[in-house]
Amino acid sequence: MQANPLLGLIAQLKKLPGVGEKSAQRMAFFLLSLSEKEVAEFAREALETRRRIRYCERCFNISLAQECYVCLDSNREPGTLCVVADPKDIFAMERMGAFKGRYHVIGGLISPLDGIHPDVLRFSELRSRLVSEHISEVILAINPTVEGDTTALYLQQYLEGCGVSVTKLAHGLPMGGDIDYADELTLQKALIGRVRV
Amino acid sequence: MQANPLLGLIAQLKKLPGVGEKSAQRMAFFLLSLSEKEVAEFAREALETRRRIRYCERCFNISLAQECYVCLDSNREPGTLCVVADPKDIFAMERMGAFKGRYHVIGGLISPLDGIHPDVLRFSELRSRLVSEHISEVILAINPTVEGDTTALYLQQYLEGCGVSVTKLAHGLPMGGDIDYADELTLQKALIGRVRV
Repeated sequence: MQANPLLGLIAQLKKLPGVGEKSAQRMAFFLLSLSEKEVAEFAREALETRRRIRYCERCFNISLAQECYVCLDSNREPGTLCVVADPKDIFAMERMGAFKGRYHVIGGLISPLDGIHPDVLRFSELRSRLVSEHISEVILAINPTVEGDTTALYLQQYLEGCGVSVTKLAHGLPMGGDIDYADELTLQKALIGRVRV
Repeated sequence: MQANPLLGLIAQLKKLPGVGEKSAQRMAFFLLSLSEKEVAEFAREALETRRRIRYCERCFNISLAQECYVCLDSNREPGTLCVVADPKDIFAMERMGAFKGRYHVIGGLISPLDGIHPDVLRFSELRSRLVSEHISEVILAINPTVEGDTTALYLQQYLEGCGVSVTKLAHGLPMGGDIDYADELTLQKALIGRVRV
């Protein structure tokens, strides 16, 4: 017997992060409301992007070409590299828009329990770039977790003697945040990192 | 210059209802994390469903075949038709699962201001089915809006003399709802429709 004709599409849409049964149903009906051409464009975009995506050979961001759009952008300030764990983090930094340097994706955070040792991360590629691109500052934009702090500490030692200053993003109260609601650790970081008014 | 390689995919995903910039970005990264085969399956499902979908010739639900899966289901109780404005409403009724009859989609609600007059809705098809399918009860599952109430009233008069009883879904307090938070109209409907305990 024929089943509900949208079951397959709904099952596919439910795989998307944050999409449950009802959202998937609404999305399925929305897709049916589009013209066949529009749905074809939607499907083509998903498939083509997935097919063509690869890693930038310089910074390991996702890219459609040999080098990513950040690396190819000649308006970027040379001399500064922002180190991130994952290409997703580049998107967050780019949304913010205030960073004008380039990036380096190390591909994860040190986590021996998960089998992620320093030698599987892209540290040597980073060190090579420091020389070839005349880098003077490496900014670590790495999550403040146990793995993140371990990685930051490791990197700081790893890059010692390379003649670059290694900094990391400040921790403290989020903008618009309320001291009363801040957790102890965040408040402690904010106190330690206090600045002159 | 090459732009952000996910811009196109994110633009497509943002068209989906309830999906903003950040959700679209998360979804795009999720799609990249799938294998090419899985993304192809996703794209194929969307395109194929859109291509093959049509209306059931009997009840005007969406369907992949001449008749929809509800109409073809011989376990459905004959004699009762649930009238809905849109195929979406059938999905809501089916999720609930307690209705065992079949459906009839009229394709909208009477709204002269929007140019939706009774003659563009599938009323005559409904009347034909009353005879051919020996229907004894028509249940109106229509939103309690001005257009919905107008349509319900029209249908009640339209079906007069057809020998069917025309009922509509009860209005009242939603389950788990709080009398204190109920709007006046809902509370009034609940009072009018009160039942013996």
